[in-house]
Amino acid sequence: MTTLVDQIVYACDMFGTAVFAFSGVLVAGRMRMDGFGVLVLAAVTAIGGGTIRDMILGATPVFWVRDPLYIWVVLATAFFGMWLVRLPRRLPWYVLPVADAFGLALFTMIGAQKALHFGTSGIIAVLMGTMTGVAGGVIRDVLAREVPMVLQKEIYATACILGGILYSLALHLGLDRLSAMLICIGAVFSLRVAAIYWHLSLPTFSLERRQD
Amino acid sequence: MTTLVDQIVYACDMFGTAVFAFSGVLVAGRMRMDGFGVLVLAAVTAIGGGTIRDMILGATPVFWVRDPLYIWVVLATAFFGMWLVRLPRRLPWYVLPVADAFGLALFTMIGAQKALHFGTSGIIAVLMGTMTGVAGGVIRDVLAREVPMVLQKEIYATACILGGILYSLALHLGLDRLSAMLICIGAVFSLRVAAIYWHLSLPTFSLERRQD
Amino acid sequence: MTTLVDQIVYACDMFGTAVFAFSGVLVAGRMRMDGFGVLVLAAVTAIGGGTIRDMILGATPVFWVRDPLYIWVVLATAFFGMWLVRLPRRLPWYVLPVADAFGLALFTMIGAQKALHFGTSGIIAVLMGTMTGVAGGVIRDVLAREVPMVLQKEIYATACILGGILYSLALHLGLDRLSAMLICIGAVFSLRVAAIYWHLSLPTFSLERRQD
Repeated sequence: MTTLVDQIVYACDMFGTAVFAFSGVLVAGRMRMDGFGVLVLAAVTAIGGGTIRDMILGATPVFWVRDPLYIWVVLATAFFGMWLVRLPRRLPWYVLPVADAFGLALFTMIGAQKALHFGTSGIIAVLMGTMTGVAGGVIRDVLAREVPMVLQKEIYATACILGGILYSLALHLGLDRLSAMLICIGAVFSLRVAAIYWHLSLPTFSLERRQD
Repeated sequence: MTTLVDQIVYACDMFGTAVFAFSGVLVAGRMRMDGFGVLVLAAVTAIGGGTIRDMILGATPVFWVRDPLYIWVVLATAFFGMWLVRLPRRLPWYVLPVADAFGLALFTMIGAQKALHFGTSGIIAVLMGTMTGVAGGVIRDVLAREVPMVLQKEIYATACILGGILYSLALHLGLDRLSAMLICIGAVFSLRVAAIYWHLSLPTFSLERRQD
Repeated sequence: MTTLVDQIVYACDMFGTAVFAFSGVLVAGRMRMDGFGVLVLAAVTAIGGGTIRDMILGATPVFWVRDPLYIWVVLATAFFGMWLVRLPRRLPWYVLPVADAFGLALFTMIGAQKALHFGTSGIIAVLMGTMTGVAGGVIRDVLAREVPMVLQKEIYATACILGGILYSLALHLGLDRLSAMLICIGAVFSLRVAAIYWHLSLPTFSLERRQD
């Protein structure tokens, strides 16, 4: 049982890696980068969050050094992606955001799980889950010289925070591992898809007082 | 005795964390970020320098994973800070810079102390003290897409360098730990306050030759 | 024999560190940074790539904490460099790019060597060699608020990738260590010098379809 769940999570993890890498390819294309720039942006988006998580936890060598399949997935996505985005036929607009929401949900769960596995407290697990989900995109945006999108609008990191809290809480309340995983993934995914569908975003905070 | 000093340093460390987090809140407000952006900028400013220091030294899991109180202080500061900056009544202008100078002095001392505790040489202790003091602010400015202020003007990092040198020197000359700590904190704090009061700054360096 | 080779590599490593630090000084001068900014840009350019490599591999404390001579070389280069760039007499234009190509070649070899020493697979060694060569320059450009040059044009990282592949391949095919080192350094250096001489660059990738 555990083995099957682990294998499914592993397969989904590779799928999420590919989706995140592809979002890096898209930004690289917008910035007119060369082939190496495409590779770098694909890589930092896909594995940047988990890399920082592992360095902070001291889980070194980091995950993709131990298992280079992540790197091969990024390479394949970058090459295939550069060809894919030039095709005249486009996918429906919602395919990529929904795939991204799924990757985000999975990365959050994996990050929180790894932190708890290292014996951290619940708040650190929430933080590590969120970091695994969003830090790669933040580095991507910094390299592309944009203010990281995730800091300015949309319910994105918020979904990770909620998912991480539910995951830690579920385990704390004695639920089995599989249920906790499904609750976390379900919560991040549905909140994120709802945010895309209804264009939900957090209010921005500014130094001026609101004109009520 | 040691225990009391350690407790005071710990309390001051939390105060410094809150002050640095609040400076992140101010930058986030200027950039019109959302609540998550405020949290991220508060966190990187307050704990970013120490995190890089710990990762470079191999002191992992990093300090705030071992002691999540730092994260709670950042969270509380971010929430309280967003409400605080909207109040009509302002603190006198010098309160924040002076509090910041105190935090900088303490972080420098803590960073240099930790490095020496790991058996590094004096120059590495100076570097780690300075990094603990300023690296968080550098990451904050990069995320806010500004050229890091500390690289361009004002005697800020210079105060850390001086404090780190005096701290290493004092211990090298055989002074007790408490005296070395007070010398370091006193030096950074006074130089920084003097720089604020008299608007001291380092000359900038440019590629053109000076017109003397 | 091994000792002599290691000593030559060590001397070349310090030379490469100085050259990379000097390129940081030049960027800092263009950005009108103060003395501390010059130090930071010199340091991140020279030792940033190796620092990230060591943190990812878990080779902590990182190399320059164990051997602070790297820091002294950076400090000396920064001070000497600020004076040097103001001299009326200039070096021929090709001196710096060629010295940089040599530093790049050496850093790539050292990075790949260290990764293999940690038992990583070939693709990770290629990645670590490339990271050691180019990541410092990427951080330098991010701090100077420029889109990292290496992501946009010129055959720079490409030379590192090729060198890393040849190095791993040579060792895999049973060549001795010295030959593998010379092949790697020779490949990176010649490709890079050729790219400078003939202004070779990779095609940039953009989202618009090519007008053929």
